[in-house]
Amino acid sequence: MTFIPVVSEQRFLMRHIVGIEELQAKDRFAAATPDVVDAILEGAGAFAAGEFAPLNRPGDVTGAKWTPEGVKMPAGFHEAYRAYVEGGWGTLAADPEHGGQGLPFALATAVLEDLGTANMGFSLIMMLTPGAVEALTSHGSPEQQAAWLPRLVTGEWNGTMNLTEPQAGSDVGALRSMATPAGDGSWRIKGTKIFITFGDHDLTDNIVHLVLARTPGAPAGTRGISLFLVPKFRLDGTPNDVRCVSIEHKMGIHASPTCVLSFGDGDDCHGWLIGPENGGMRAMFTMMNNARLNVGLQGVSIAERATQQAVAYARERIQSARAGAASRDSVAIIEHPDVRRMLLRMKAQTMAARALIYYAAGQVDRAHAGDEAAQARVDLLTPLAKAYGTDVGCEVSSLGVQVHGGMGFIEETGAAQHYRDARIAPIYEGTNGIQAADLVGRKLSMENGAVFSALLADIRAEAADEGALMALVDACELVGARLLAAGADDRLAGSYPFLTMLSVAVSGWLMARQERAARTEQGMDADFLALKQAAARFYLDRIVPEAAGLAAAATAGAEGLYGISAEAFSA
Amino acid sequence: MTFIPVVSEQRFLMRHIVGIEELQAKDRFAAATPDVVDAILEGAGAFAAGEFAPLNRPGDVTGAKWTPEGVKMPAGFHEAYRAYVEGGWGTLAADPEHGGQGLPFALATAVLEDLGTANMGFSLIMMLTPGAVEALTSHGSPEQQAAWLPRLVTGEWNGTMNLTEPQAGSDVGALRSMATPAGDGSWRIKGTKIFITFGDHDLTDNIVHLVLARTPGAPAGTRGISLFLVPKFRLDGTPNDVRCVSIEHKMGIHASPTCVLSFGDGDDCHGWLIGPENGGMRAMFTMMNNARLNVGLQGVSIAERATQQAVAYARERIQSARAGAASRDSVAIIEHPDVRRMLLRMKAQTMAARALIYYAAGQVDRAHAGDEAAQARVDLLTPLAKAYGTDVGCEVSSLGVQVHGGMGFIEETGAAQHYRDARIAPIYEGTNGIQAADLVGRKLSMENGAVFSALLADIRAEAADEGALMALVDACELVGARLLAAGADDRLAGSYPFLTMLSVAVSGWLMARQERAARTEQGMDADFLALKQAAARFYLDRIVPEAAGLAAAATAGAEGLYGISAEAFSA
Repeated sequence: MTFIPVVSEQRFLMRHIVGIEELQAKDRFAAATPDVVDAILEGAGAFAAGEFAPLNRPGDVTGAKWTPEGVKMPAGFHEAYRAYVEGGWGTLAADPEHGGQGLPFALATAVLEDLGTANMGFSLIMMLTPGAVEALTSHGSPEQQAAWLPRLVTGEWNGTMNLTEPQAGSDVGALRSMATPAGDGSWRIKGTKIFITFGDHDLTDNIVHLVLARTPGAPAGTRGISLFLVPKFRLDGTPNDVRCVSIEHKMGIHASPTCVLSFGDGDDCHGWLIGPENGGMRAMFTMMNNARLNVGLQGVSIAERATQQAVAYARERIQSARAGAASRDSVAIIEHPDVRRMLLRMKAQTMAARALIYYAAGQVDRAHAGDEAAQARVDLLTPLAKAYGTDVGCEVSSLGVQVHGGMGFIEETGAAQHYRDARIAPIYEGTNGIQAADLVGRKLSMENGAVFSALLADIRAEAADEGALMALVDACELVGARLLAAGADDRLAGSYPFLTMLSVAVSGWLMARQERAARTEQGMDADFLALKQAAARFYLDRIVPEAAGLAAAATAGAEGLYGISAEAFSA
Repeated sequence: MTFIPVVSEQRFLMRHIVGIEELQAKDRFAAATPDVVDAILEGAGAFAAGEFAPLNRPGDVTGAKWTPEGVKMPAGFHEAYRAYVEGGWGTLAADPEHGGQGLPFALATAVLEDLGTANMGFSLIMMLTPGAVEALTSHGSPEQQAAWLPRLVTGEWNGTMNLTEPQAGSDVGALRSMATPAGDGSWRIKGTKIFITFGDHDLTDNIVHLVLARTPGAPAGTRGISLFLVPKFRLDGTPNDVRCVSIEHKMGIHASPTCVLSFGDGDDCHGWLIGPENGGMRAMFTMMNNARLNVGLQGVSIAERATQQAVAYARERIQSARAGAASRDSVAIIEHPDVRRMLLRMKAQTMAARALIYYAAGQVDRAHAGDEAAQARVDLLTPLAKAYGTDVGCEVSSLGVQVHGGMGFIEETGAAQHYRDARIAPIYEGTNGIQAADLVGRKLSMENGAVFSALLADIRAEAADEGALMALVDACELVGARLLAAGADDRLAGSYPFLTMLSVAVSGWLMARQERAARTEQGMDADFLALKQAAARFYLDRIVPEAAGLAAAATAGAEGLYGISAEAFSA
């Protein structure tokens, strides 16, 4: 089956969570009129459902293929990608100076959500190129911007992120790729990068690799890393010395080629420095932060797809009479309480994670317009959005399998693909453990904890009548204070449960807001508003209290983890 | 990688959780001397690791194949299966009258755990045959037992369970397969069964299908179902009219052929009634109850395998300095707090689910020896063991992927296979939702709640000093009372969270017992005892409080689930 675009949901979130009217009031986003926003939401949904969704299963079954001439995408992907470029979908949030439409990032988020729901593996190329655009926009020279941005903005060329090497994963500072001056203003790049998403393929005429490497004499660790633009083809059309050596055989997202790239085997790979020498990490974080929101969004995308499929199956599949009903006739399984519990949990978790990410995206737009408090809030929320969004993707796609019963385990049904696809998202773009470390290590302490406190204050001010939520916020405050005061080991030992608690608190706040808005909303579909309220109550009454149960684990400290040796784990 | 047998753990559980000495004191189990038990635990571990584990990845990659002549198993499986039969591993717990060794079911449980850890898909044939043996032992005529049991007991022939039809999954009563008298004492069987595990293969000379079907004029629903023995080859060697029409293309357990079986296409499929006409459900439950414990055990098996693999990787993979350490040298990732959290969670969950299932298996043995209270406790614990064990399998195998980072998503690593394999277990042998319904619908109310109360009393008596556990037991008591008094919808709406709470309470009790035992245990490996205590504390201090967070969801009732129409789920 394909998917039904979630236009009502997105419109509702634009209004109540993103605050699109407030954004449109800013000069920068004046183009984002209600008509334009509506047209984009409707158009993107229809495009994704019509062009991308039918390729989801072929992408899984056939997948991207490595050949000596380069990676080949399955049939149909080329036309769909061309339609994406021609439709201008990649240009939405980019700077008008480089061919973009200057629309809010939050709107581009909704479009990317649709593409991911339609075809998660395929959507990665559309997710990563805007990151390269942003890095070049922030750190490239005017000449570099003029040369590379216009075609990256449209998607005629795609951008990649080249961080990982076999010995340098989470520890980016351990990378060894080298860049030496070529004498003509360019640098010779040499090294091997792994896990490079869409590092090679036959969808575009050129591929723009953004590559982290060390220059001669650079300091050790992350302070000695520089960012280089390394195209597959140089501007004069010469092929550059970069090869896709192999692609990975993965559990999911088979439509996304995960490449091993070899740079400079023949000592003739040219790259151009982006930003200052040794300034690579900062430039990379520019790419990475929005990419982290977008990976969290992938969790929402796959959760939405899995939920729609499970709902459709549960409405169709007849099995057993309902225990609590007078009639002994068999009913659709959606009528059984535990199936309803699963489906409403799927709906609630998906909506909650979506709200968290759309909210963060709206703050990105405010930050772009100069609001520093909004930037601080984005910084705080980014690890939550990435980790919680992707955890929700895994949980919901697992429930989707479960609702299908035995059919869920059969590949032809499609539920299993979502389950397999979803599993990558908690790993890439910084594992969720790295997100938790970022939260307690860097984000919690921003402005001496004031950014964190301001968030809790906002939740309390708006949702004071939600008892369970207030209890969770209190718990978050206590745990946050404990972790801030703790040493590194204890802080990290509690980081993941704390991240989940805080994510649920923020999402609960946004769900409470939506429930209120749905009660008084005019002119929207009654079923949509009823579902919204039911899902919000499910979240606030059932999921929020669950998260409070994590407080003990968040504060239990590291001692229990280190009472045994590493060897004893194998005993 | 292969796996390391968990002999210390199994021996420890035999002593402190199964109570093997108490069992051996009974005439029935007099053969289970400490020497015999030790030899079996060591032998089974070595056999599984040596013969079965190396076939795990070939089983996944090649898998069972359908051909017009029947299903073919991959290379190596035939020899390994023959070694299983020749080693007498299938005969352990069977009745000596039919060639069994009359050893405790709990001991057979340990052996089956090893086989599942080594090769989950393959182990299914070894899991299901004992169920057929039990059904025939309890319900077959002396002639049927003499004819079929000896070779089923050894595993020379395998047994299958044929319940499911396309329209009859959880609702077994909806099945339509027919049996009509053939005039010679046999019945003509006609119908199609799906999801039949090892319904065809080339490992044995014969396959003994136990098939549920209706006789002419049988009452509707489950009261009109009879059980038939339908062999692939009749006793005189004539091929019976049963065909494997196709096998499923599944997400995991590829070594286990999941068959569509067509009975009586040529109107010449003969079956023999087992037990009385219309008594099929009772006979089927005989098979199913122990099978449910064994499926819960599969969760433990796969969790163990995933944990071992993750520990090995985490001890080997060097990445980043430890944040809390003075040294800035990179360390093995097992030294990072959040990785330790994941690994110790994996250990704790695996041990906890194992303890729950071994405990239940020990009660099965007491019940076999005539202890009615033990039978009641098994009945109460069976849905917990099945659902919690399999949920743990999924959670732990997911954490196993996560510990591996990007490598976890690459199929060659092997972590992904565990994640895929594990996902079937919450579905088959009664979905976990069906287990939850069984718990609140049938089990909680046994003897007016006295069976449930006795369990809580035992926990309180033994672990009164565990504050978090006592709080969880109190919550279970309150929630249990609420659900007992509630109508069907409210009861079922809270069934799944309640099942998890009660499972964690029982497991927490058994973990507390193990912690105490480990403190004073003599003559065991110090690392093993240290790990046991660390895992127990992790479980009691971090996981038990989490489960208490489910109380709100368990008592929130059905109203919130039914406030919207089925159609609104698609809004």
